[in-house]
Amino acid sequence: MPPVSHINTIGLFGFGQFGRLIAKHLSPHFQMTVHDPYAIVSETKAYHFDTAAQTANCDLVILAVPVSNIASTCQSIRSHLKPGCIVMDVGSVKMTTAKAMQDHLPADVDLIGTHPLFGPQSATGSLSGRKIALCNIRGQADRPVSVFLRRVLHLQVYSLSPEDHDREAAVTQGLTHLIAKVLTQMGPLPTRMTTVSFDLLLQATAMVRHDPPNVFSAIEEENPFAADVRNEFLALVADLGANLRVTSPEQ
Amino acid sequence: MPPVSHINTIGLFGFGQFGRLIAKHLSPHFQMTVHDPYAIVSETKAYHFDTAAQTANCDLVILAVPVSNIASTCQSIRSHLKPGCIVMDVGSVKMTTAKAMQDHLPADVDLIGTHPLFGPQSATGSLSGRKIALCNIRGQADRPVSVFLRRVLHLQVYSLSPEDHDREAAVTQGLTHLIAKVLTQMGPLPTRMTTVSFDLLLQATAMVRHDPPNVFSAIEEENPFAADVRNEFLALVADLGANLRVTSPEQ
Repeated sequence: MPPVSHINTIGLFGFGQFGRLIAKHLSPHFQMTVHDPYAIVSETKAYHFDTAAQTANCDLVILAVPVSNIASTCQSIRSHLKPGCIVMDVGSVKMTTAKAMQDHLPADVDLIGTHPLFGPQSATGSLSGRKIALCNIRGQADRPVSVFLRRVLHLQVYSLSPEDHDREAAVTQGLTHLIAKVLTQMGPLPTRMTTVSFDLLLQATAMVRHDPPNVFSAIEEENPFAADVRNEFLALVADLGANLRVTSPEQ
Repeated sequence: MPPVSHINTIGLFGFGQFGRLIAKHLSPHFQMTVHDPYAIVSETKAYHFDTAAQTANCDLVILAVPVSNIASTCQSIRSHLKPGCIVMDVGSVKMTTAKAMQDHLPADVDLIGTHPLFGPQSATGSLSGRKIALCNIRGQADRPVSVFLRRVLHLQVYSLSPEDHDREAAVTQGLTHLIAKVLTQMGPLPTRMTTVSFDLLLQATAMVRHDPPNVFSAIEEENPFAADVRNEFLALVADLGANLRVTSPEQ
């Protein structure tokens, strides 16, 4: 019996950092086909790669492509999808991808937006206890998918609307990536006179600084609430500095 | 035999958060006298409290008072110090306190500046492996004190000049406290849609947000390099924001 009723086959579009993580964790449970014209050949051997048409012809189609490519991927696969199949994305923003899938995919396809709140840097071993946001966009596939994520992958599943997701992620991811980017630009940072709290800051930075540029761009540019959070952060930093007494080095 | 040659008695000025941590870790090794007119009576029972004159009359005098009170404390204890004793501070900046001790303490007193890079929040159990900066200001007491810190308290001791210390701490502590203060002002922050890196950021913030206000003030206002670091951080945040595309919430 398949781990999710009616889902026997999975088609995975995108074999980047996150696509490879998905393939590793889902291939033991499903018959999986992968499509990525830019995949590194040496890393593809463990999986069955096929054409876009064959990969789209599955019970569940997962779009692990950059957020900016979701719309064009939907357009190119739409004619190959099976009626009643499920299409799911894994992007860091949910309003943009939900709209792209709704706009470009047939009405007889169920749509789910997910945002796994972990990545290759933070989830090196088991996924047990990791968090994933789940936004049901169209249809009722969210129930069985949620059950699978919880019971088989042991993830913590948070069901919420794309807008609620983006509001929270604008703060959690928006601030983390903003701070990490700025600290990286300030480097090399001291490693001797460090406190535990500064070490934690460096760990947080190290965890996201190697994310592909399109992840930063999605988080900061495709989330409609990110600019407000950045502006609030900037204003508070400026305000704090303006109210502090400055001691000159030439005292 | 005392754990440091020539040091039998320690006089501790200040019984705040850090003073209490010092008392806990040094009282098993030395005969300790504490002076703090504002100490909470219920917490003083384990230690011998005495007048400022008696507390100053020790082999090693530790100033665990706010950085802004170092100069006035030096002035009030100078006539009670024994010739050849050691005076040591534990402030978060080292140039300001070194100058205050040099300006206001007799020439026959050895001076050491220290900055323990941990506090009651981060060092709840043993101090083993924690870091401490050690700046020798006057005399040769740094050698035996350094040996004691390493061999008895098992600290990692970094010997450097007050200026080198302040340059590094302007980044490590300056940035951590700046970011923590701003994140605290932005709160309440989301706790559901959090990534591992954001959780680390919150941990770093939680670790310093309860520091007394004078710690923040010392780190940001008494360190002559802190303003430059803040300005660089502010400029990079502003620059990053200015170069990002903004998606309006009313798309």
